[in-house]
Amino acid sequence: MKLVVMKFGGSSVAGADKVKHVAGRIIQKKKEGYRVVVVVSAPGDMTDDLITMAEGITKSPPPREMDMLLATGEQASIALLCMALHAKGHAAISLTGPQAGIYADADHTRARITKILPKKVLSELAKRRIVVVAGFQGLNPHEDIATLGRGGSDLTAIAMAAALEADLCEIYTDVEGVYTTDPRVVSDARKLDEISYDEMLELAGAGAQVMQGRSIEVAKKYGVVFEVRSTFLQASGTRVHQEVRRMEDVAVSGIAFDRKQAKISIVDIPDRPGVAAKVFGALGKAGINVDMIIQSEATDRKNDISFTVSESDVKKALSALRPVKRALEAADLIANKNVGKVAVVGVGMRSHSGVASKMFQALADEKINIQMISTSEIKISCVISRDYVDDAVKVLHKTFELDKK
Amino acid sequence: MKLVVMKFGGSSVAGADKVKHVAGRIIQKKKEGYRVVVVVSAPGDMTDDLITMAEGITKSPPPREMDMLLATGEQASIALLCMALHAKGHAAISLTGPQAGIYADADHTRARITKILPKKVLSELAKRRIVVVAGFQGLNPHEDIATLGRGGSDLTAIAMAAALEADLCEIYTDVEGVYTTDPRVVSDARKLDEISYDEMLELAGAGAQVMQGRSIEVAKKYGVVFEVRSTFLQASGTRVHQEVRRMEDVAVSGIAFDRKQAKISIVDIPDRPGVAAKVFGALGKAGINVDMIIQSEATDRKNDISFTVSESDVKKALSALRPVKRALEAADLIANKNVGKVAVVGVGMRSHSGVASKMFQALADEKINIQMISTSEIKISCVISRDYVDDAVKVLHKTFELDKK
Repeated sequence: MKLVVMKFGGSSVAGADKVKHVAGRIIQKKKEGYRVVVVVSAPGDMTDDLITMAEGITKSPPPREMDMLLATGEQASIALLCMALHAKGHAAISLTGPQAGIYADADHTRARITKILPKKVLSELAKRRIVVVAGFQGLNPHEDIATLGRGGSDLTAIAMAAALEADLCEIYTDVEGVYTTDPRVVSDARKLDEISYDEMLELAGAGAQVMQGRSIEVAKKYGVVFEVRSTFLQASGTRVHQEVRRMEDVAVSGIAFDRKQAKISIVDIPDRPGVAAKVFGALGKAGINVDMIIQSEATDRKNDISFTVSESDVKKALSALRPVKRALEAADLIANKNVGKVAVVGVGMRSHSGVASKMFQALADEKINIQMISTSEIKISCVISRDYVDDAVKVLHKTFELDKK
Repeated sequence: MKLVVMKFGGSSVAGADKVKHVAGRIIQKKKEGYRVVVVVSAPGDMTDDLITMAEGITKSPPPREMDMLLATGEQASIALLCMALHAKGHAAISLTGPQAGIYADADHTRARITKILPKKVLSELAKRRIVVVAGFQGLNPHEDIATLGRGGSDLTAIAMAAALEADLCEIYTDVEGVYTTDPRVVSDARKLDEISYDEMLELAGAGAQVMQGRSIEVAKKYGVVFEVRSTFLQASGTRVHQEVRRMEDVAVSGIAFDRKQAKISIVDIPDRPGVAAKVFGALGKAGINVDMIIQSEATDRKNDISFTVSESDVKKALSALRPVKRALEAADLIANKNVGKVAVVGVGMRSHSGVASKMFQALADEKINIQMISTSEIKISCVISRDYVDDAVKVLHKTFELDKK
């Protein structure tokens, strides 16, 4: 009997009516002949509400206690969803992350899954029950509840699908799938029927909000084929897997962008080994993720280093770098918050050298100045003025004919 | 080093300010030189809110899933309270019921504690941490979370105090202690400095809302001395223990009452063995607690049986008894909801035969008709019209001079 893991996000279970609707989707799947494991997030704004409660007590809650608090959100969801399934006449059982055999490391509020021993899940499936597992949580080596951080529920679903060797993993969300770009920006953006892990990873890294990179990486590592689809519509979504067969001439599959970037530059630093290590070591210690990095050419034994970070990390980054600036006797430390990023993504572009020049020309035609460029095998990203991000996305979507199948 | 178990109810932790206040009370105790274990209920109306959420999904949620849902309330409380303790600079760790080693039977939503293995509590105390335990919950034989039903958090505290052989157990609540009667009815009601388990039990059984009987029974069984006291005032409360030394002439220690009673009568049933068993067997099967029972004298081989139940159980009781009425060919089945109960309670009355007549005379002087009487060794209860309950409490409080020390 085939096995499916279905994951529903918080917006899918916000309120009794939505919980009942989700129960209907699950039962539909069961009737198609599947054994069903469900992973569910905390309802709607509950996680935010819990965080607000904690902030009412203290500005810096201990991470272990924060996890104890946050884990109640998913626990409420699994109970309510099982009630809805029972009410519709289907046997179901809720399991917390620890009960479902999900083990995590000790890094509270952003733990990593270390292993899954789904003994209880399998024994409940054998009793012909629908098994509803709390996303976002696991048991750490101290036998404490640990939460998995951003994207943790998706990760739970993908990892559970891998551990159970599921035939299918479905990520239900409030969008219909993965699009060529954000439909709010480009009205004729098109839903992709399929996409490769690598492309999905680049889209996630370039600001597409569908899914966090960590879940996609685990899916790729364990070969979990999953489908991103809508909770509220019956239409099929986007299938994410290893190999995507396409006509040779389709090079670009999507345009990603991120308005909330900032560019930081350290000006006039010595051109000697170890300098970059000092700069990015300080940022790493402060827990800041750096995206694009550009080092200008050396002139007169002096260098500039520029890089982008998320806008919300600017303050932290600057205070981490001030001692470095002094130590290196740099001339200046500058932050520019008025920048954004736009990227074209596609597996096909590996063998199409024309993609980059086509992208740069299209932006030039729109008089959009490119401040930084970075490339990977399947992505070309440009940092531009934040004001032009939407225009850039529109023109690139048109240039690469993404509105046409 | 002495050990205290402190229990705080839901009204004591409703909102950030109250949580911080409670943290202050706990730290005060720690500074007095105690090792501290805290038991806490769900904040304020949270349990009711969760029940409302469940009712939005289904009228009859599976009890296991109800427990999964309800247990989140106490879990939120323990996390928030530990955050407040940390913020004030004191190491604290929260433990769910299962983590604290509280085991329960499989009777979901009203489980009984079967044993406590407080290994983790003791090891955390040894690390000089304040240990904050979720009340109202334990781990059942299926490794599921089970809730302990009404008064479950008090029970957790008393049972934990017994298991840890605590030197002190304090039940913090929104009243200052146990009173001679409800101060809202009799303005000069007096707080008792001490009371025996048996008296406290009778008061609980007769409608005093301070504590459920089950917790008092466990305290009595294991000799746990506890004190009921105010969360918000520093004054000492009421000490509950085995033996209470009193002057010989103090016979009555309190007046209890319950307005929400109902009287049910089955009229004209055969006077033969097994009839009462049929009646109360049917009620027991329906899970209804019967309080006072009166069987009238047989005339012409026919009998009446009357008994009182909680007002909220009337509908259930009547539908349980309708088949019995038919089977016994009784003439009638009548419910009277306009009744209440008033009781005088006191260990001293065992050796004071005058208490009953004094009580009846006082009620007669007020022209209050007595519908039913029941007595135990330390209590005399009367069922009267609901309209006269307050008057009866006032006159009895005065008659037995409870306003005077």
